[in-house]
Amino acid sequence: MSVFVSVVGPGDASPKQVADAETVGRLLAGADAIVVCGGRGGVMEAACRGALEEGGITVGLLPDADRRQANPFLTVSIPTGMGELRNGLVARAGDAVIAIGGEFGTLSEIAFALKLGRPVVGLGTWELARGGAEVQAFEVADGPQEAVARALALVRA
Amino acid sequence: MSVFVSVVGPGDASPKQVADAETVGRLLAGADAIVVCGGRGGVMEAACRGALEEGGITVGLLPDADRRQANPFLTVSIPTGMGELRNGLVARAGDAVIAIGGEFGTLSEIAFALKLGRPVVGLGTWELARGGAEVQAFEVADGPQEAVARALALVRA
Amino acid sequence: MSVFVSVVGPGDASPKQVADAETVGRLLAGADAIVVCGGRGGVMEAACRGALEEGGITVGLLPDADRRQANPFLTVSIPTGMGELRNGLVARAGDAVIAIGGEFGTLSEIAFALKLGRPVVGLGTWELARGGAEVQAFEVADGPQEAVARALALVRA
Amino acid sequence: MSVFVSVVGPGDASPKQVADAETVGRLLAGADAIVVCGGRGGVMEAACRGALEEGGITVGLLPDADRRQANPFLTVSIPTGMGELRNGLVARAGDAVIAIGGEFGTLSEIAFALKLGRPVVGLGTWELARGGAEVQAFEVADGPQEAVARALALVRA
Repeated sequence: MSVFVSVVGPGDASPKQVADAETVGRLLAGADAIVVCGGRGGVMEAACRGALEEGGITVGLLPDADRRQANPFLTVSIPTGMGELRNGLVARAGDAVIAIGGEFGTLSEIAFALKLGRPVVGLGTWELARGGAEVQAFEVADGPQEAVARALALVRA
Repeated sequence: MSVFVSVVGPGDASPKQVADAETVGRLLAGADAIVVCGGRGGVMEAACRGALEEGGITVGLLPDADRRQANPFLTVSIPTGMGELRNGLVARAGDAVIAIGGEFGTLSEIAFALKLGRPVVGLGTWELARGGAEVQAFEVADGPQEAVARALALVRA
Repeated sequence: MSVFVSVVGPGDASPKQVADAETVGRLLAGADAIVVCGGRGGVMEAACRGALEEGGITVGLLPDADRRQANPFLTVSIPTGMGELRNGLVARAGDAVIAIGGEFGTLSEIAFALKLGRPVVGLGTWELARGGAEVQAFEVADGPQEAVARALALVRA
Repeated sequence: MSVFVSVVGPGDASPKQVADAETVGRLLAGADAIVVCGGRGGVMEAACRGALEEGGITVGLLPDADRRQANPFLTVSIPTGMGELRNGLVARAGDAVIAIGGEFGTLSEIAFALKLGRPVVGLGTWELARGGAEVQAFEVADGPQEAVARALALVRA
């Protein structure tokens, strides 16, 4: 059975986030993992572009009721019509989740994945604390290579 | 952009329904359409098997929270964790819907597709009436070849 | 525990459907049942108006992301942001479902309720057949009094 | 129109969290706000118990497909059958969200609320940071009285 890795991050991404996401997508596809995302732009689009360049398969779970706002690098687009609730579907669809950057939508996907017991690897994303003490709820990678390596290791563990 | 056709029908299917679904899957893949379904057995599995034999791509939107009950002929499996509510996602994900056989779940997918304005082609499925008068809410095909031809024609219309 | 009855029907309803829905709402509230609906106009609004006049409680599961299109007769409004997928939530939330009139959305709610094993009572709604033979999938009432009586009897059965 | 405040927190709560949640529920009901929650135990149950004692209305959006695991202090229970995805519905249903304590499910509800632009008040819950710098994404209260006062002020702002 295929391995699925969800790549989550902002639709309005910085150049570094875009570059990292593209590398993540390329490395995942090179390892025969299917890339799942929210189907829109920014980090989502870059991860898909990288994966397609490597001959991979990409899946976008869109918030919209139709496909008009899908990014052009999706093998499979699913218009859920569920708005931001689709973030939970993205988190659930990944055997692991790689989170790049940090907007609130990304935080919701990290939190959902943790709640569901999916392993999460962060790349320049949120840090969590409680009562002033840091909580190491997920692994943190230094770069896209490490993020992919750890995510795949966690899936195979 | 790819064409997506949802194939809906019972998980507990008759031999004729299975044979029809497999032919539908094969013909859709032959026409480069991606097959979307509920990801389980019966009609869903047969359509996917047919599509994969033809080199196509198949997508299963599972009711379950994980992939354990996915049929083995899915390119992409999405565990929605939404139970039967995923029927609405299956209906929405198709640019057209082909309904084979007639259980209540199939009826819910036909109804959703009609509500969303997705074209529906029926093959040995429900007939609808109101006030004693038949309602022709969707096209009816005589066999799998006609079902696929009409579904693809409706998508391209 | 309270009894919940979902009242489903078109947002664009005929005067007779509106009158029937209002009576249904009033009778349900008089029997201490909570009325659940899709939260919009037409049959939904009329059922809620009837229930509130009788001192009952009403719940609207809205397709929208906010409350702006809620009808004014809801004790509790829930903006689901799930679009027409909320029809499945409405069907699931009722211990029984009363379907008035017949548009495609109503058909989706009937079908979902049947799939989930919720008892359904129809009032001037869809008739189902397969292979030219009528299928009696749910009870049919002659008027709102009978519809409520049968729905409550089915819940208590 | 009524004000709705979602109270989110762990099903397995500490005595202090339970006491705080009960006070929050009582104060919300005293201010005529409807309490929305995930319908289960712990913080959810305590908030509902407090609200009911004060004569308020409580709503539980359950992850389950039926009502069997609903807490006994719900005026309205909605079995969504969507599992943890219902966290997004809970966040959306509140005009404001009060988060008590800090498990991953609570984090998902905070994140969803922030994404949707719903005001959030935290009480002994997660703290967020990015790049080593604290992010003040939501208001933090010292106790249940302040949490309710700020949530209601944010709704009315």
